Amino acid sequence: MKLVDKSCREFTNVLSSKAAVPGGGGAAALVGGLGAALGGMVCNLTIGKKKYAQYEEEVKEILRKTEELQEDLLKMIDEDAENFLPLSKAYGLPKNTEEERAEKERVLQEALKIACEVPIKIVRTSYEAIKLHEALVDKASKLAISDVGVGVQCLRSALISGQLNVIINISMIKDDDYVKRVKEETDTLVAEGTKIADEVYKKVEAILS
Amino acid sequence: MKLVDKSCREFTNVLSSKAAVPGGGGAAALVGGLGAALGGMVCNLTIGKKKYAQYEEEVKEILRKTEELQEDLLKMIDEDAENFLPLSKAYGLPKNTEEERAEKERVLQEALKIACEVPIKIVRTSYEAIKLHEALVDKASKLAISDVGVGVQCLRSALISGQLNVIINISMIKDDDYVKRVKEETDTLVAEGTKIADEVYKKVEAILS
Repeated sequence: MKLVDKSCREFTNVLSSKAAVPGGGGAAALVGGLGAALGGMVCNLTIGKKKYAQYEEEVKEILRKTEELQEDLLKMIDEDAENFLPLSKAYGLPKNTEEERAEKERVLQEALKIACEVPIKIVRTSYEAIKLHEALVDKASKLAISDVGVGVQCLRSALISGQLNVIINISMIKDDDYVKRVKEETDTLVAEGTKIADEVYKKVEAILS
Repeated sequence: MKLVDKSCREFTNVLSSKAAVPGGGGAAALVGGLGAALGGMVCNLTIGKKKYAQYEEEVKEILRKTEELQEDLLKMIDEDAENFLPLSKAYGLPKNTEEERAEKERVLQEALKIACEVPIKIVRTSYEAIKLHEALVDKASKLAISDVGVGVQCLRSALISGQLNVIINISMIKDDDYVKRVKEETDTLVAEGTKIADEVYKKVEAILS
């Protein structure tokens, strides 16, 4: 059974256990998916309302994109779990001889890069979804404006959580070029993304008060 | 079927729809539940490890509490949906005569307070769970330290999201004493809770680098 098909209660219970998956990466992907879904909900509550007719086409386009990102993030829950398998296997390899140690290190280095893939995608996708909330906040039905705030807070959390899962993996990767490239990309997206998320949240707060 | 028993995929899909529930409150409760669960996971990965034997009893106690808060937050998903019903009913009442308008206003004011109940509890419970992460960060297995960071980010998001759902309801409540009391409590918990969450996150970052 896929993790994404588990009930919310079951997923949360397995998360809290010692089980190797889901871990922080899977939780981050789910929280990001919820954030994208909240953006979609706000679009759905805005579309068809006379008062917001002038934004109708733009909001429909934002909805199309939030649906795509939501689906991407939900898929990452299980993808992250699958990508953890090679790493888990690598840790189990023997290291009694010089050859075994060298082989283990080679396999481990490869597995670490695989384990990094989904967290990097979580950072990218959460950033994209935050940008969509930025585009949405001025065009959204005022009746649903608090949900733009909740959506952007979920995505801010997914963005930073994705980065934490990148960091824990690259801290053991010895390919300096790879580490530098990944670190630069994710650091930039997190710095920009949290800034935008905080601005969107402030707008929501201002509209609510 | 309870919302908490829906699959992660189904819950996220219904969230993105126009359906009245789940909304931002239910999403916040789930994200809070995931945050508490991550704290529990870190406890479970720390307990029994020789290296952290000195903290064993404290970590077991933290686990007991995260499990309780996780369960509380998961229950709030459906409780929030139930508490939305009176409000939804109140909006539907007629307002043709002076009497009808007065009655509608009376029922609405009551329903708004009911709708506030779970969001207030989400703020309180997320705050409690953030405090548990604060107690855990220095006693947690270093192998799971990134998950303390993910947990605290989820709870930070749930805390602020709970507050947003308080604000949108109290903005229409005319009982000034109630509004003042609720606002003071939640504002204080959010200000303190985000501060603590950010400190815990910085500690995690420092340990990771």
